[in-house]
Amino acid sequence: MKQYGFGVDVGGTTVKIGLLEMTGTLLESWEIPTRLENSGGFILEDIAASIRGKIAEKNLEIGDIQGVGLGVPGPVLADGTVCKCINLGWGVFNVERELSEKLSLPVRAGNDADVAALGEQWRGGGAGYQNLVMVTLGTGCGGGIILNGRIVHGAHGAAGEIGHLIMREDEPETCGCGKHGHLEQYASATGIVRLARQALDSSERESALRDLPEITCEAVFQAAKQGDALAEELVDDFCHTLAVGMADIANVIDPEAFVLGGGVSKAGEMLRGRVEEYYRKLAFHVCEGTTITLATLGSDAGIYGAAGLLLNL
Amino acid sequence: MKQYGFGVDVGGTTVKIGLLEMTGTLLESWEIPTRLENSGGFILEDIAASIRGKIAEKNLEIGDIQGVGLGVPGPVLADGTVCKCINLGWGVFNVERELSEKLSLPVRAGNDADVAALGEQWRGGGAGYQNLVMVTLGTGCGGGIILNGRIVHGAHGAAGEIGHLIMREDEPETCGCGKHGHLEQYASATGIVRLARQALDSSERESALRDLPEITCEAVFQAAKQGDALAEELVDDFCHTLAVGMADIANVIDPEAFVLGGGVSKAGEMLRGRVEEYYRKLAFHVCEGTTITLATLGSDAGIYGAAGLLLNL
Repeated sequence: MKQYGFGVDVGGTTVKIGLLEMTGTLLESWEIPTRLENSGGFILEDIAASIRGKIAEKNLEIGDIQGVGLGVPGPVLADGTVCKCINLGWGVFNVERELSEKLSLPVRAGNDADVAALGEQWRGGGAGYQNLVMVTLGTGCGGGIILNGRIVHGAHGAAGEIGHLIMREDEPETCGCGKHGHLEQYASATGIVRLARQALDSSERESALRDLPEITCEAVFQAAKQGDALAEELVDDFCHTLAVGMADIANVIDPEAFVLGGGVSKAGEMLRGRVEEYYRKLAFHVCEGTTITLATLGSDAGIYGAAGLLLNL
Repeated sequence: MKQYGFGVDVGGTTVKIGLLEMTGTLLESWEIPTRLENSGGFILEDIAASIRGKIAEKNLEIGDIQGVGLGVPGPVLADGTVCKCINLGWGVFNVERELSEKLSLPVRAGNDADVAALGEQWRGGGAGYQNLVMVTLGTGCGGGIILNGRIVHGAHGAAGEIGHLIMREDEPETCGCGKHGHLEQYASATGIVRLARQALDSSERESALRDLPEITCEAVFQAAKQGDALAEELVDDFCHTLAVGMADIANVIDPEAFVLGGGVSKAGEMLRGRVEEYYRKLAFHVCEGTTITLATLGSDAGIYGAAGLLLNL
């Protein structure tokens, strides 16, 4: 293992870049804008230029650099081929080869949700576990599966697409993917807001949520904390539905731990504790005790995880 | 890789043993009774004696034998420790070490459902796939997960316990495991018989099933084949519920293929075709095309898979 590595988290607005010691210490992180013009054709050159600049600035020896890890918002095949990163305008090409040629360094790429899971497994809430599932609760609901310390990609890059677990086949509303009754329609920021609006519209019940100019996920959790009965029920349903999904995941791959991350996980123990309570009741008996923990790296998970891709070079 | 290997499938009534070429050809198979007296304490010595006998009979050189693979009806930890095989009377001990000492050959052990999955992946319906899920539809519903050609055990030996996926939380009847609404309560031989009895008891509908002295899973599939409307609905529900479970499995590990095995899979294309039809509708879009195939090794899957455990020695 060489001394340094770069971890790059490519988002639709900014690219986050970190310089790490390969022992797992983030030395420095910075951001550059994601240039979407030219079908995202400048992005890799911008990343390469930024890394070249940092190497020069720090006077790093190329021989001391393990490589560059890259998390991208879309499926990545085992050989480094990206298959349409819609948010970046990218089509199908080998992102590892292309960036590697620009920098003369080894490059490894992965899907951003998977890479964040690897980051939490390496240096975050899942540290110490070789087998875990990260549940990312943000606008949507995503996930990443780590087995034996490595990302499970799946035959179509869809391993860990836990937001599309089927919870209620009779759900009339449509999931973002076009099908019905998926976990993401209940256990995500969008999901809880949707259910809050439904609950307010379908009854005359009093709730602090009625006074808000706009209902957000954060506001629902906040109101629940302050004892608002309707908000409490919504949070409770959220945790219950998520726990059913997690119990099902355990029946498939039986991880050592679940790590709850994403914006919604800022609700902290209120979320984790309730999910754990339902999970303990719902899970297959031998998996009832699976650890459920919160992510700790926040938006740096992608940088750590991207560098973590270089550990198995 | 050495030339020969033994595959042993330990059941509650008989032990099936096979002598294989490690290229994957079954040369010979035979059975010995499973002696349950003395808390199953004679079983390993009986297996060792039978293998010694075959080695002598065939004049095999010990140096030409890769080892002995063993499938057992219970959880097996990565180090070869079995944790209570209730049907055999076994407690907790290292089955690999104990059999290895008797034979002076390497021994590798695995759970029987996992081992059957490995057998189908190596030489059966899943040949050619490195990543598959075997769905075993027998009295109950079990499964085995193969990733990169290797069994996934899970942190508590519960990976592939797909019979306990939660399908209907409002199910009043209890699963064998003590919880409610699990896949096995619908998609298994016991499950379809239970639902058939419910359907007959709760209506006056005509059905050929009413004339049977005893309702069996086979009889329900047979009646459905002959156009019995009630039986057709039961088979349809079976396939639908199973397909929901498989769509959920795909969202977790996204296998290349599903292999349907176990006694119920003798229904053949009637089962496979309908499951596939529902799966294509229900699965997350990128996984809609996952191969769904029938197991081909029947009761020899365990022998093949047990020998397959020796491939990674």
